[in-house]
Amino acid sequence: MSDDTTGDWQRTTIDSAQAAAHPETAAAVAQIGGLRQSIDNIDAAIISLLAERFKATARVGVLKAGAGFAPEDTKREHYQITRLHRIAEDAGLDPQIAEMYREFVVTEAKKRHQRIADAGGDPGVLDVYA
Amino acid sequence: MSDDTTGDWQRTTIDSAQAAAHPETAAAVAQIGGLRQSIDNIDAAIISLLAERFKATARVGVLKAGAGFAPEDTKREHYQITRLHRIAEDAGLDPQIAEMYREFVVTEAKKRHQRIADAGGDPGVLDVYA
Repeated sequence: MSDDTTGDWQRTTIDSAQAAAHPETAAAVAQIGGLRQSIDNIDAAIISLLAERFKATARVGVLKAGAGFAPEDTKREHYQITRLHRIAEDAGLDPQIAEMYREFVVTEAKKRHQRIADAGGDPGVLDVYA
Repeated sequence: MSDDTTGDWQRTTIDSAQAAAHPETAAAVAQIGGLRQSIDNIDAAIISLLAERFKATARVGVLKAGAGFAPEDTKREHYQITRLHRIAEDAGLDPQIAEMYREFVVTEAKKRHQRIADAGGDPGVLDVYA
């Protein structure tokens, strides 16, 4: 058992070296590898959906700036909070996670709406990521 | 034009009252409504995927606790950072958003791994959201 693969409660790299060093836990290492592949696939799907979400909110930002509407819409936010909480419970996800997700995307979308408004409604201010 | 629907740069509720108060921007209000429906659909899909992601990471947490592995795996994190950055660029998403997403889910997953480990490998500590 080499030093760099012995148990370190601060961090553990789970790979073939770890499996070789701990043959008694090789099955767990293999199962973790399979789960991580699923996690990576889920992440790829979520990143693609986030790309679509920010494309849509950039368009909303341009429309809002053109109409003179504010980046913030508290009524809309209350609706989103209630709805996402319910969807999370149905899906078996801790609603706290759903609320952290909502805060993250709404905060970033509002920042971008403000930048579009400051640029006179030009989504080009978001560079290639509008 | 009533007081509660006049332009307020701090916040604007975009709904039928807003369209009635600003007939010149009614088309923008309608377009924003359509985009918001797409945003809500995207959010529902992401929340469902997050539920699956946290189910998978809870299983990883149980396996790690059983094998005596740490919640943290820096090599895995470096791999995720590089991969998600590339996927974001391909998808037309600001890589900063992808990195914020990664930090959010990895931080929450590690917290839950620690709670599972502290409970002796029992995922029940995450309540119904394991």
